[in-house]
Amino acid sequence: MSVGRFTIPTEENFIQQSTELAEKWGADAIRNSDGTHLDDDVINMGKRIYSAYFPNRGHNYFMKDHMDCVPMVYLMSERTRATDTTVDVPLMVTYFAEQLTINRDATPQRFWEVIDRTSGEVLPIDQWELDPHTDVVHIHNAHPMHEYTVTFLAYVIWDPVQMYNHITNDWGDKEHEIAFDPRHPEIQEFMLNTLDKWLVDNPHVDVVRFTTFFYQFTLIFNNERKEKIVDWTGFAVTVSPRALDEFEREYGYRMRPEHFVDGGSYGSSFVYPSKEQRDWLDFTADFVHSLMKQMVERVQAAGKEAMMFLGDQWIGTEPYSDTFPAVGMDAIVGSVGDGTTTRMIADIKGVKYHEGRFLPYFFPDSFYEGADPSIEAWDNWRKARRAILRSPLERMGYGGYLSLAAKFPKFVDDVATIANEFRDIYDKSGGTGAQAQLTVALLDAWGARRSWQEFTVAHALPNKYNRSFYGILEALSGMRVNVRFLSFDDVLTNGIDSDIDVIINAGPQGTSYSGAQAWKNPQLVSLIRSWVSSGKGFVGVGQPSAVEHGGRLFQLADILGVDQEIYHSLNVDKYWPELTEDHFVIQDIPRESLDFGEAIMNTFPISQQTTVISGLDGQVQLAVNSYDDGRGVYLSGLPYSALNARLLERALFYAAHKEDQYAVWGSSNPECEVAYFAEKGIYAVVNNSEQPQHTVVSLPGSKAATFDLAPSAIEWTSIS
Amino acid sequence: MSVGRFTIPTEENFIQQSTELAEKWGADAIRNSDGTHLDDDVINMGKRIYSAYFPNRGHNYFMKDHMDCVPMVYLMSERTRATDTTVDVPLMVTYFAEQLTINRDATPQRFWEVIDRTSGEVLPIDQWELDPHTDVVHIHNAHPMHEYTVTFLAYVIWDPVQMYNHITNDWGDKEHEIAFDPRHPEIQEFMLNTLDKWLVDNPHVDVVRFTTFFYQFTLIFNNERKEKIVDWTGFAVTVSPRALDEFEREYGYRMRPEHFVDGGSYGSSFVYPSKEQRDWLDFTADFVHSLMKQMVERVQAAGKEAMMFLGDQWIGTEPYSDTFPAVGMDAIVGSVGDGTTTRMIADIKGVKYHEGRFLPYFFPDSFYEGADPSIEAWDNWRKARRAILRSPLERMGYGGYLSLAAKFPKFVDDVATIANEFRDIYDKSGGTGAQAQLTVALLDAWGARRSWQEFTVAHALPNKYNRSFYGILEALSGMRVNVRFLSFDDVLTNGIDSDIDVIINAGPQGTSYSGAQAWKNPQLVSLIRSWVSSGKGFVGVGQPSAVEHGGRLFQLADILGVDQEIYHSLNVDKYWPELTEDHFVIQDIPRESLDFGEAIMNTFPISQQTTVISGLDGQVQLAVNSYDDGRGVYLSGLPYSALNARLLERALFYAAHKEDQYAVWGSSNPECEVAYFAEKGIYAVVNNSEQPQHTVVSLPGSKAATFDLAPSAIEWTSIS
Repeated sequence: MSVGRFTIPTEENFIQQSTELAEKWGADAIRNSDGTHLDDDVINMGKRIYSAYFPNRGHNYFMKDHMDCVPMVYLMSERTRATDTTVDVPLMVTYFAEQLTINRDATPQRFWEVIDRTSGEVLPIDQWELDPHTDVVHIHNAHPMHEYTVTFLAYVIWDPVQMYNHITNDWGDKEHEIAFDPRHPEIQEFMLNTLDKWLVDNPHVDVVRFTTFFYQFTLIFNNERKEKIVDWTGFAVTVSPRALDEFEREYGYRMRPEHFVDGGSYGSSFVYPSKEQRDWLDFTADFVHSLMKQMVERVQAAGKEAMMFLGDQWIGTEPYSDTFPAVGMDAIVGSVGDGTTTRMIADIKGVKYHEGRFLPYFFPDSFYEGADPSIEAWDNWRKARRAILRSPLERMGYGGYLSLAAKFPKFVDDVATIANEFRDIYDKSGGTGAQAQLTVALLDAWGARRSWQEFTVAHALPNKYNRSFYGILEALSGMRVNVRFLSFDDVLTNGIDSDIDVIINAGPQGTSYSGAQAWKNPQLVSLIRSWVSSGKGFVGVGQPSAVEHGGRLFQLADILGVDQEIYHSLNVDKYWPELTEDHFVIQDIPRESLDFGEAIMNTFPISQQTTVISGLDGQVQLAVNSYDDGRGVYLSGLPYSALNARLLERALFYAAHKEDQYAVWGSSNPECEVAYFAEKGIYAVVNNSEQPQHTVVSLPGSKAATFDLAPSAIEWTSIS
Repeated sequence: MSVGRFTIPTEENFIQQSTELAEKWGADAIRNSDGTHLDDDVINMGKRIYSAYFPNRGHNYFMKDHMDCVPMVYLMSERTRATDTTVDVPLMVTYFAEQLTINRDATPQRFWEVIDRTSGEVLPIDQWELDPHTDVVHIHNAHPMHEYTVTFLAYVIWDPVQMYNHITNDWGDKEHEIAFDPRHPEIQEFMLNTLDKWLVDNPHVDVVRFTTFFYQFTLIFNNERKEKIVDWTGFAVTVSPRALDEFEREYGYRMRPEHFVDGGSYGSSFVYPSKEQRDWLDFTADFVHSLMKQMVERVQAAGKEAMMFLGDQWIGTEPYSDTFPAVGMDAIVGSVGDGTTTRMIADIKGVKYHEGRFLPYFFPDSFYEGADPSIEAWDNWRKARRAILRSPLERMGYGGYLSLAAKFPKFVDDVATIANEFRDIYDKSGGTGAQAQLTVALLDAWGARRSWQEFTVAHALPNKYNRSFYGILEALSGMRVNVRFLSFDDVLTNGIDSDIDVIINAGPQGTSYSGAQAWKNPQLVSLIRSWVSSGKGFVGVGQPSAVEHGGRLFQLADILGVDQEIYHSLNVDKYWPELTEDHFVIQDIPRESLDFGEAIMNTFPISQQTTVISGLDGQVQLAVNSYDDGRGVYLSGLPYSALNARLLERALFYAAHKEDQYAVWGSSNPECEVAYFAEKGIYAVVNNSEQPQHTVVSLPGSKAATFDLAPSAIEWTSIS
């Protein structure tokens, strides 16, 4: 067994077993968890010490005098219908009064917005007023039977992360933590002073693990104490009158409340971002980075490392922005939910190392009598391992109550195995990713800014709406391809890098991902066409390039060979070519195992030249098309599975016209993948399943090697 | 057995059997079919004589000198991509050269349009020219990688109906019939003179069956001799330079070629009609009515009746327009495909009688060795009978080769039974429809103009795209409700008639049927809300009132209790109420038999107040909602079946708050329906299935009657 690259959580009064487990797992670092204290024995274990640090909460005594400096959010009231010419809109009925309270300090008439949602008109401010005694806005001169909403500013008086844990764990009358917004100079000053003091008081800490910084992702509860709005990339809770004013000074125009609530979509990343929203994100990131940098510098001046947790109050940190590296953060740590979230951590630039916190978290929901937490641990590891082989994490760890994990000896052994495998991968690979054979770019409205975050609502939680698209990321996370993220603006401004082989555009119609109105821009369309025509590949998933324009829905239907009938040309006959039974893209995939996820209805081949490989009842599921020297591939959806990862891999090689390069470093068994480290002259074969697998790996020079892999196994081979 | 109200087709050299069959079926009229001649023996049978009359074809000798007067059509070329700054667009590659030929007589630069479909721009006329020697348009100064289309005027040189029969029956070198366009004065003159002469030459004819008038519905074939465009309500083939000029004089603006081809949708009735298209329909109807009237007057002056076939060249006859009755037509005859098409004939106003031509047509595709044409006959009759009981046809008949039918004695007997039933219904009911208990209006962009024609592409041919909506019409066609057709304009101009109980809005998003942009009009929305709120019902099917606006897709989500997630608020939690197991609307329908047709994805209850009765994996299939004193009902689709007719009936009574009136005149068995003729004190119970059925009919005064009905049976009962 090996040692290092492993962070173990600790617990009070558990020193003896902690030491044993640390040794068993090869831990070189110890962290405290949210709420646990590091006692002297632990400090004296001789490991590096991580300490969680919460910059924006945990100081209620101070905040009680600064309640105007808590985070704020624009909330949209329920739509309220006028039955005559006056209407009363209650503001808080569906919101959780323990979390949110109306901000009456910022003049409603200046900061709020009342909108007639039926006509779309914003009401003049003299047409409504907030009742001073109730949480109700009275509207007069209303149009009967129109629906009205009030967008009002609210204080977030309970930190959502603590609130979530508090409610979930039924913490009763435990004090509610109040967060604060450093947009206010007095708060900034307090935060920095507090940090300074803490650094002095905690000389034993080696790594300050910021959990996290200033702005929580959107997490709003309803009047039944249940989640109402959750958005892991949501920036709703970054607003304040002060921020609005500063923004106006800096950008020369004022944000409207509607730019935040957006008819109820609250800046969802699925919505094509407006200029105002992009500006606001930049504005927020500038502020966040500048303050982060001050904190990081203080940490480093105290001889410690600064580490950022990728989550919770991470809004505005924008770790994929060009300006993030200048913050000078030493490390990133994030929760590894799957391959995608592993890459989301591992691919961040400008930090010295990346650490993954693996699952399961040592909490009673996974560690209860009769449970086998090893199952989740292995599943998590198999998904992450694919990704790590492509883009290394330098460190790993677990979180939660160590004493819970200690009760499951098999789990303890399995973690030891995983930790050794982790270190082994790092050592054998030299901390670099395996060789890629293609370069693939995902094209959407966000580009690099949302690397590995596309299609996400809640972190690592696919649902029926996004699973058909999220599977693309998950497949790519461990695939032998380089992955880039391009925005439409990137392409329009800089063209397409010459080393890119295939562009993927994916998602449902009318979203930032599939592209919506971006495709009405003839420049974009002709640029992509021209690029593909020259011999490149374009893979569309779902409703790629979909926007109704010029008699087509898919603006790149000519490349894909597929369009969607939106009931405007039912009078035009659609002739389907015969299904193509055998094709490179499904060569080793049993047809009956094909899974295209949620149906995209009413797609059709635009001509007999389209090669339809799978289709069902008037829906094209898989088709390929020649486009001059290039190729298009259409997939109706791609939920993650080993077979679908294989399907996408084949589709990408096919689209890139590199079928001849597909075999080498390929595995005959889709449940297995090969990672080749050219500089080291070594390759790994992984079994991504919990069953034993047999596979043949094709090697250069028409050679091959056979492997029989135990469940979840990885096997390393040198090329002689 | 009874006699009358029955038209029998005839055939040459078949007089003896014709006489026998005419007697067996109680025929009082004889018709010739397309191409069959009436010989003297037939004329002397003493029956009324119908003769098919084809006003706009069958005179090739004349047309050979008037080839500039054949019908014309605007065709859109294939989209052709420019690979550099010039591009050649071949016009005819996908069209059938035997049907269509480019019109080079009307100056292309004046009458054609070249469109950059990528940018949406119309090209200046100096940027392209038609190659005088080939069917190719050369475009210069093109944008590379943009797609271009040429909309060109073409002559229709082969009558589509004859072409269809010619190709289907492989008529070899039989001469192609050339149709003509009476927009030209010399053609009008020829048509009227020809009619005058024909009337003199055919003194024995009692009824001139116009088959039909002047403009064929859109039927365009492709280069492989297969159907390319078919649209039973399509007006594409009504255009000509002369018509365009006359239109401009009359309406003060000029129609563009794009108003006809519309990016490839060719005026599909599913597309929300533009002002220009509506104006053109009116313009065409005015002309068609005026010329029809001249022909009708000549027929009547000759002592005969004028009958119009509802099909083929029926475009512009607009039998549901306000101006149609003034034409003075004596009768309408149409093909009975189902209940919907029966009502489409029966409900036409301004004629003395309506005749249904029932199926099967006496053609070899139904009458071949071993076939049982009775099956289709009974199916056709059962569907039509439901409709006839609500809205009577005065006459019935069959078409085709009588000698074929004569070979199937069981069929001959069955037709005798059907004919007797038909007459019996007429006699017992006194030629009026059964009592309705509700008044229901279908609301869309077309209103009365497209009565019973909604969701239709090809006559009486549901497909996967429209079956979920067409089923509404089919269900209504035989339901104990009055049916109205309202347009959005009707409602905006005149309000909603006070006797209407329920409004139905149905169809896919973005169509004339569900309403598309109409719902952005706050007047419309508030008018419907206000009406429902006052105690009325609104039933939405599919994507009712769908248009993205104000943060909602279904603009009447508040009434329906249901909206659709279009990926703009995935970050907002959707809480589903528990499914309601028992509810009035599904009371006698086994839950496992519910069939909502094609899926509408991602619908959700907008609040816990919505009563969800059926839902599946994030899709609401059936929900009801209270709306002040009114009610909303949402159905995701309604393909026709006896159970779905029942479901809709219940939904309508529920929406109308008339559940208490539902039982009386209801049948306990959904396969049976009751038609009550109040004035006659009589009711009929019909078995709509081919199995025997038992049912209990609820009668006024808490009485009931039990029926055991033979397959397809109808039973009449007097109330004493």
